[in-house]
Amino acid sequence: MENRYDIAVIGTGPAGLEAAITARVRNKNVILFGSKDLSNKMQVVKHPILNYLGLPSVTGEQMAAAFNKQLEELGITITEKRVTSVYAMGDYFTLQLDDNTMAEASTVILATGVVAGKPYPGEEKFLGRGVSYCATCDAPLYKGKDVAVIGGSKKEEAEADFLGEVCSSVTYFPLYKDEPEFKNNVKVVREMPKEIRGEKKTEALVTSGGEYPVDCVFILREAQFPGQLVPGLETDGNAVKVDLQMKTNIPGLFAAGDIAGRPYQYIKSAGQGNIAALSAVDYLASLR
Amino acid sequence: MENRYDIAVIGTGPAGLEAAITARVRNKNVILFGSKDLSNKMQVVKHPILNYLGLPSVTGEQMAAAFNKQLEELGITITEKRVTSVYAMGDYFTLQLDDNTMAEASTVILATGVVAGKPYPGEEKFLGRGVSYCATCDAPLYKGKDVAVIGGSKKEEAEADFLGEVCSSVTYFPLYKDEPEFKNNVKVVREMPKEIRGEKKTEALVTSGGEYPVDCVFILREAQFPGQLVPGLETDGNAVKVDLQMKTNIPGLFAAGDIAGRPYQYIKSAGQGNIAALSAVDYLASLR
Repeated sequence: MENRYDIAVIGTGPAGLEAAITARVRNKNVILFGSKDLSNKMQVVKHPILNYLGLPSVTGEQMAAAFNKQLEELGITITEKRVTSVYAMGDYFTLQLDDNTMAEASTVILATGVVAGKPYPGEEKFLGRGVSYCATCDAPLYKGKDVAVIGGSKKEEAEADFLGEVCSSVTYFPLYKDEPEFKNNVKVVREMPKEIRGEKKTEALVTSGGEYPVDCVFILREAQFPGQLVPGLETDGNAVKVDLQMKTNIPGLFAAGDIAGRPYQYIKSAGQGNIAALSAVDYLASLR
Repeated sequence: MENRYDIAVIGTGPAGLEAAITARVRNKNVILFGSKDLSNKMQVVKHPILNYLGLPSVTGEQMAAAFNKQLEELGITITEKRVTSVYAMGDYFTLQLDDNTMAEASTVILATGVVAGKPYPGEEKFLGRGVSYCATCDAPLYKGKDVAVIGGSKKEEAEADFLGEVCSSVTYFPLYKDEPEFKNNVKVVREMPKEIRGEKKTEALVTSGGEYPVDCVFILREAQFPGQLVPGLETDGNAVKVDLQMKTNIPGLFAAGDIAGRPYQYIKSAGQGNIAALSAVDYLASLR
């Protein structure tokens, strides 16, 4: 296929960036999904980071600037779309994006970071039957219905606002302190989501303050649990199971950085991104 | 013991440096063995290194300068002694050094790089019975005897010169192109060593050009095969067997970088050095 990338890298922390850089240096056709801010977690670090070999005593902002300079020099751009699902299709992968388009790649490197916490009770059970991770993708299914949105960060408000255009009611549960702002009819409730309840499909969201009858709960986290992002992926808690070559249980799929387990350290993530990229290069060679 | 270090790091490539930095940042008492030139392999790289995240397009020399600056800022010094053997003593390690002294450490991180090639036939069989890796340590045993020296680099000439002071004859086989220079009576022979031969102990060194009757062959490589450096260490070819936390089969002993297997990449080595240091920190906590 013409538009099939050699390598899709998901995530713009140190693991994803190093993977993209190494893949580019090896002349692969790479698409890098993430944020032009690179990594929120990194940008907010004000105390000096002392143990990234080569960058003595830098703030997160300085580190990001060094990384950006390198991306620029190598002509690597960041695609600011969220990957909502990755499907293994045999010798390639289909990536579903949050603007309802698709991308194809022969190999995929997961570098989306680690998600704190656990799925809500009922979340996995009702996935696709009243639990969704993508408003843009699934809004049409809930036209005229009542939905809840769990928003992990301020960025998710646009998605909830969009639901406000098509749904009968939208109740928004922010997991952050800033005051949410909406153009459309979105009701903000400051209660902690606890459980998704129902028989055959979602019927209600249970919170610390009560029970909200809804047809769908949209869970908009900064990053998804890896097993939800890639059906069939073997995980161990919040981490993807990998070997020393950063291979997962799915051929052609690799993981690097925090998503591949502890320690959560910049240089460790970068190192694993490098290994993952070279393993992907090897895998591509084996496809021919 | 008063003079026991928390962590001994062996090697001053990216893996060893990152391990030492991370250990220091975690307030551990660290000794770092290696060369003030850091890594020969790195210093000679003239083409730009493109894929070390954070250092866009640097030569090996520039990379080494960045690393040295960081060592200086953190007050980390390099001990320029060669570690010739590491012995696991239970809850600590004894390191034999090439000046015939010892050091003790609760944990050890091997980051000595990869050794090309294989041991010579007979090398492992006669180790301690006419094969030695340390002239300073074993010279007294061969006073008045005939010895051969296989020199991996110009640096080894001092060792051979020292043998010239005490042995009856020293035949030196350089594995490099530069002309060796000696003060003492050392005979240079440009032939490739092939095999160490004998019955119960070394009797001769066989080369591409003939057979040299000797009582001992001193094999002075830049780096030792890991299984020779640490008796009992599990290896796979030239690589030490490690898990994702950089643990070897010996509790308290970790490996990182090229010695831990492919790919041979700077950032991968640094990342593994970081993991190894944090694993050593965890291990130290478990000793208490």
